[in-house]
Amino acid sequence: MNNYEILRIGHRPERDKRITTHVALTARAFGASKIFLSNPDSRVINSVEDVVNKFGGNFKIIPTENPKKVVKSSSSLIVHLTMFGLPLDDILDDIKSSEQDILFIVGAEKVPPWVFESADYNVAVGNQPHSEVAALAVALNSISPISYNTKFDGKISVVPSATHRVMHEED
Amino acid sequence: MNNYEILRIGHRPERDKRITTHVALTARAFGASKIFLSNPDSRVINSVEDVVNKFGGNFKIIPTENPKKVVKSSSSLIVHLTMFGLPLDDILDDIKSSEQDILFIVGAEKVPPWVFESADYNVAVGNQPHSEVAALAVALNSISPISYNTKFDGKISVVPSATHRVMHEED
Repeated sequence: MNNYEILRIGHRPERDKRITTHVALTARAFGASKIFLSNPDSRVINSVEDVVNKFGGNFKIIPTENPKKVVKSSSSLIVHLTMFGLPLDDILDDIKSSEQDILFIVGAEKVPPWVFESADYNVAVGNQPHSEVAALAVALNSISPISYNTKFDGKISVVPSATHRVMHEED
Repeated sequence: MNNYEILRIGHRPERDKRITTHVALTARAFGASKIFLSNPDSRVINSVEDVVNKFGGNFKIIPTENPKKVVKSSSSLIVHLTMFGLPLDDILDDIKSSEQDILFIVGAEKVPPWVFESADYNVAVGNQPHSEVAALAVALNSISPISYNTKFDGKISVVPSATHRVMHEED
């Protein structure tokens, strides 16, 4: 099975704290193994590690001061998610037929030119402004065969219910 | 074609400003017609209206003090997106075969019991904690035939590119 990693660039601690947390939790829930976070932010790291401790899995959040180096030293297919890219539907078959692992890059507001230049694919989940959380969720869901049905082994798990909130907690 | 609306409940202005903005922009980009926002927040409204003014369409953001009334007076199928619900994949066919419009409810952290009770379906996009932005994007993408390929008529549009940022702006 392919391995999926995320690089979150341009994180601005005050402004992006919760969006970056949602990016990371979506990455984990949809089967990615790790996220590199430029501009470390202990609150984001704590929130994500708290979910991993309770709900399981091996998802890692890795601070980096040098996102360009993460890209240059990666042997994965580099897929930059951007509203300026080519339609996901047009290049989905190419990406899915690759046997490489994938490093997804998701930026905050304005991404530096080197990101476009380093990417194997600049991919748009629609060409409208919306959300890097939505773009990552749809991209992972379109590419990964398991996606949001990834299984975890946590102390806490949800018991799916048609009517109310049910959790199972190990003693 | 079905009409899709969103009800965002439990919005906390300080904490949720950017997440709620992403929920609204995702709703618009994926073809929904409007979002009801409990606890009005002028910064969210301004951000969303700014995107509509530039990028087009008729998406509306409607403040409400009474989200329960929005649900009770709606004739749409009520689909509450929650990590505690039944798997999306198990009830997708039921939802898609309905000819009703759909009102999606997306909450912030903890949702009151009446939401579970009022919903025709409590639906989980995976039973892991992740993001209401991701859940809404995947649900709309699974249900709507057009989804993120919805066309808009704005003054500004993106020219899809494999390599860089290109915008078209009307004179």
